[in-house]
Amino acid sequence: VVGTSRSDYTDIANEMGATYIPLSDPDAFLAQNLDVIVFAVSIMSFESTIQSFVPHLEKDLQRRKANANGQDVHGPLIVDVLSVKEHARSVLLDLLPPECDILATHPMFGPDSGKNGWANLNFVYERTRINQVVLDPDRQLQDNQDCFVDATGCNHSVHEDNEAHIEAVDRIERFLSIWEEEGCRMVPMSCREHDAYTANSQFIAHLMGRILGSQGLSATPIDTNGFESVLRLIDTTTADSFDLFYGLYKFNQNSADTISKLRIAMDDVVGRLQTMEMEEQAKAVTQKE
Amino acid sequence: VVGTSRSDYTDIANEMGATYIPLSDPDAFLAQNLDVIVFAVSIMSFESTIQSFVPHLEKDLQRRKANANGQDVHGPLIVDVLSVKEHARSVLLDLLPPECDILATHPMFGPDSGKNGWANLNFVYERTRINQVVLDPDRQLQDNQDCFVDATGCNHSVHEDNEAHIEAVDRIERFLSIWEEEGCRMVPMSCREHDAYTANSQFIAHLMGRILGSQGLSATPIDTNGFESVLRLIDTTTADSFDLFYGLYKFNQNSADTISKLRIAMDDVVGRLQTMEMEEQAKAVTQKE
Repeated sequence: VVGTSRSDYTDIANEMGATYIPLSDPDAFLAQNLDVIVFAVSIMSFESTIQSFVPHLEKDLQRRKANANGQDVHGPLIVDVLSVKEHARSVLLDLLPPECDILATHPMFGPDSGKNGWANLNFVYERTRINQVVLDPDRQLQDNQDCFVDATGCNHSVHEDNEAHIEAVDRIERFLSIWEEEGCRMVPMSCREHDAYTANSQFIAHLMGRILGSQGLSATPIDTNGFESVLRLIDTTTADSFDLFYGLYKFNQNSADTISKLRIAMDDVVGRLQTMEMEEQAKAVTQKE
Repeated sequence: VVGTSRSDYTDIANEMGATYIPLSDPDAFLAQNLDVIVFAVSIMSFESTIQSFVPHLEKDLQRRKANANGQDVHGPLIVDVLSVKEHARSVLLDLLPPECDILATHPMFGPDSGKNGWANLNFVYERTRINQVVLDPDRQLQDNQDCFVDATGCNHSVHEDNEAHIEAVDRIERFLSIWEEEGCRMVPMSCREHDAYTANSQFIAHLMGRILGSQGLSATPIDTNGFESVLRLIDTTTADSFDLFYGLYKFNQNSADTISKLRIAMDDVVGRLQTMEMEEQAKAVTQKE
């Protein structure tokens, strides 16, 4: 295992038996002949990080080709862990060299929710590209299924007479098995479907937590159970950075719609209260007359 | 124990060793010489229920006076359990005969939150009127405190040379001890202070639950912990009647302010997102130029 970052993590890496290489030297990082590279960066800096990494990846592919004596060369499997998946998918498909396989993932937990282990926590993933074939994201490769469909509708056998394909599939499965063995609930799901769900679950939870936090609510001497759970929601969502919240808004095309729906729902509920009040007042006036 | 209601609960009362008297015969109910009467009705029907009950209370007081051979006569202690307390307080002070003592209470739990016992659940109360003296609500009679202040600022001793006063205080304490013995967290608090707190705790929880429920949110295959607590909030608040929710709005003068603050907080958070987005776009345009 080799790690890289802007900050120096040499000591921590050594303690773990891992290698640390500073981000300032991406070529030395790639010279480690990595099988899988996981990009764990913020939503906001994802595209620029990939963009600045790609020239080094291409240089590394040239190096691998020079050493391959004419044999086919495969790049590393690129994995992302962003909370927005269509954005990650399109950036990776647009920018990466075709020799890199792509696995889009979202481990749906963090230091807090995962602090007692990862058992039953959701790990969402889309096998996006395998050996230069872009898969149909809505027809995910299933266990015990011997074929898959690519994005053009063409059927492929897992056992295609192609050693490179078999190796690529195997590498993805081995990577996924790490999470599976930790007890994660493995959820194969297209990036599109993921974003549609999370705009109406994860994002609305963050949105509500931020709004209620902005309202300046705090514990009272007489909190109800319901309000205690409101306070917990505020605490957990405002513990994350505002940049994450902004990223969930900006890079999930469904989020703006979620905000509009929240406004409509608010007007609906407040409108019902006000209508009831007006009807009552009208009735009271009629009774007096 | 004597119960009354519009519905017939004779069998249930008998099973509990209690007496049931139909609400259609309030005089028979009052003829039981009750020490304490607890009104457990909805916020919406509270005032009209008290209003229609008062003539019977007055008739009962005449009966008690006729039987008292010239001695002072005390009415029953009247207790309410409304979730809005200033409304309850003013209705009871305005409408009840002066011979009735008043204890305003809010047991802050229901069939759901209290289903495993009442230990540590909040029981809020204000001793409102004792033996014709309206107490200063912000200076509650404390344990181990031998005097109290009435609403005009006048000091009274608990041991006033007045048997009626001592009996009235004792009756209230015995009633409160029932809840204390069940493990409730006893919170002496003025009705005014209660309403200020609950508008920013209980009401906002109901408001959010209703708004998110109206948005039509439901479980997804990939819920985060934060969203699961949002769903629980929707379930618990929409399990209560809309009438309760409306009552919390209509009869707590702080609730309208809570709604305004929620709108401002929402505009604030959404505005921050949109400002960040515009600034980014402006920066991108500048970079292109």
